[in-house]
Amino acid sequence: MPEKTIWVEDKRVYIIDQTLLPVERRVIEVTSVGAMWEAIKTLRVRGAPAIGIAAALGVWLAIRESNESDSLPLIEAIHNACKYLATSRPTAVNLFWALDRIESLAKKNAQLRHEQIKRAILKEALAMIEEDNEVCTEIGRHGASLLKSGTKVLTHCNAGGLATAQYGTALSVVYYAVESERKEIEVYADETRPLLQGARLTAWELMEAHIPVTLICDNMAAYVMRSKGIDAVIVGTDRVAANGDVANKIGTYGVAILAKHHGIPFYVAAPLSSIDISLSSGDMIPIEERSAEEVTTIAGARTAPSGVKVFNPAFDVTPHELVTALITEKGIIRPPYEQTIAELFGREQVLAE
Amino acid sequence: MPEKTIWVEDKRVYIIDQTLLPVERRVIEVTSVGAMWEAIKTLRVRGAPAIGIAAALGVWLAIRESNESDSLPLIEAIHNACKYLATSRPTAVNLFWALDRIESLAKKNAQLRHEQIKRAILKEALAMIEEDNEVCTEIGRHGASLLKSGTKVLTHCNAGGLATAQYGTALSVVYYAVESERKEIEVYADETRPLLQGARLTAWELMEAHIPVTLICDNMAAYVMRSKGIDAVIVGTDRVAANGDVANKIGTYGVAILAKHHGIPFYVAAPLSSIDISLSSGDMIPIEERSAEEVTTIAGARTAPSGVKVFNPAFDVTPHELVTALITEKGIIRPPYEQTIAELFGREQVLAE
Repeated sequence: MPEKTIWVEDKRVYIIDQTLLPVERRVIEVTSVGAMWEAIKTLRVRGAPAIGIAAALGVWLAIRESNESDSLPLIEAIHNACKYLATSRPTAVNLFWALDRIESLAKKNAQLRHEQIKRAILKEALAMIEEDNEVCTEIGRHGASLLKSGTKVLTHCNAGGLATAQYGTALSVVYYAVESERKEIEVYADETRPLLQGARLTAWELMEAHIPVTLICDNMAAYVMRSKGIDAVIVGTDRVAANGDVANKIGTYGVAILAKHHGIPFYVAAPLSSIDISLSSGDMIPIEERSAEEVTTIAGARTAPSGVKVFNPAFDVTPHELVTALITEKGIIRPPYEQTIAELFGREQVLAE
Repeated sequence: MPEKTIWVEDKRVYIIDQTLLPVERRVIEVTSVGAMWEAIKTLRVRGAPAIGIAAALGVWLAIRESNESDSLPLIEAIHNACKYLATSRPTAVNLFWALDRIESLAKKNAQLRHEQIKRAILKEALAMIEEDNEVCTEIGRHGASLLKSGTKVLTHCNAGGLATAQYGTALSVVYYAVESERKEIEVYADETRPLLQGARLTAWELMEAHIPVTLICDNMAAYVMRSKGIDAVIVGTDRVAANGDVANKIGTYGVAILAKHHGIPFYVAAPLSSIDISLSSGDMIPIEERSAEEVTTIAGARTAPSGVKVFNPAFDVTPHELVTALITEKGIIRPPYEQTIAELFGREQVLAE
């Protein structure tokens, strides 16, 4: 099982700085809300579930040392921290989901004493970590039912332990199949340009877990599907719309088309916190564009002409027609997604009441 | 129009060292057959048409300074040089085509004097450069008829001037449309991992030619097709089989599938010297696999875990069903390729007799 990605110890917040992997595994303490914003923005912590947790802990960092005697300025500070952290990245809905949850909690407890509110916020963020672990394990358990022993899985980007608090979404399926069900699973990992999360993170964590992994460039996926007998594609997601359209790391849409062409099922591991039922389709999901330098320089070296025009979208949207199933903590969700996703949330709402 | 890639001046052979582009445009003299083998192997000179010419000049370098009085050792030396150069790279058929042509010429002229044979070899290699320029221009002229003004073209790898003696194959179509027909053409260039020929070479030469180019990562092609309105894909080829299957830089097969999915025509610029009618299908084309380091290190920096397993095929084969047309120097060739390619070579043979 993979290691923790983000955690709290003695009221200090730690993350693995993922920008340094795989060359160095360095744990850093995040000491302020500004530092957390920077860590999310620069992808020291990344992956939709992990940045939700990071944002929640970021709010707590904003108020950790406040000692107002009144709770009103504290609620105001929480509100401002949420607004600020929401500007770090636009696509993953978990960020907004986590911030909403923290701010609602704060408002609901506005009558409490200052110290009690601070404790409640920290407790909520820690609960998110626990829930994330449970959700990831359940995703792994449900997803593993889709894989026979001997399966070759292709994945894109990193939806592993490093993208969550600990266990991963797409890779949790692989971990569960291997560790709890003793299946033999082999993974092909797209390197995932421009920031190489597949090469740097997915390959690293699978090697750490002793799961066979072969690294390929993104443009080799079609040839690998044709020549190596890939049985399933499993990816994570940053946001799923109510109709089942899936926003995920740039390149996912292409992989989905290639999977369809080769008759390979295309699965998306999606915690309910990634499903945004307020959006009727994926066209409404904002797509983050990042700097040209991510494409034109690698490890500080220039690999393209100075001044070249670059298009660098960080995500794309895979239309629901290409998605064989969503793997959620509540089970495998299949088309028609408008109906099955609504049912999923309907049932959830009933349970919550 | 682009600059020369490989040329002879005062009996010295020069190439642009493409491994240094785009950071530095350095011309190097290639002084021996061993240095030419190394230049082909390490991709200082690359692109199917260019390595054919490079190989022919490599043979000449092998005998340039020989001063046997008898021609028999010279023919032997030519044979050995051809065998040696044929081991530099396996996929592009132009290499073998050029070496066969040089060796046949030598054998046919075995009765000539030593110096005459040497002159004939150099003359033949220089004729290949002239022919390549004519072939590329004709490919450009025929291909340009496929493009309206305002067309957005997506290309993969580099089938530009840098892949030939000067004018390019796929990019010759763009150059011709822009320069001779005053059409407005915009190019999206896949960066083409692992060696980034699209970023380093295609973007560079299009910028030099003042043609609008946008650089993208390979995995962005699907999203660009969907969101930017790509009108045509044009790529080069290293070898076309008799049934129209196309070997080209790894990733081409994936781009062809994406083009089909989006209803975009997929064109392959193919000089007749790239068509290998001795192979009935693309399954018979040998696919070069290159070192893991090409994938795991970039500009000397490690970007993947030490010891990770890597699959690094340098080429793939696009089945003919995905190829809308071949753009040759003799015109646009369409399916059924088994028939139209046979006709193309039948007609050629008649003309040559």
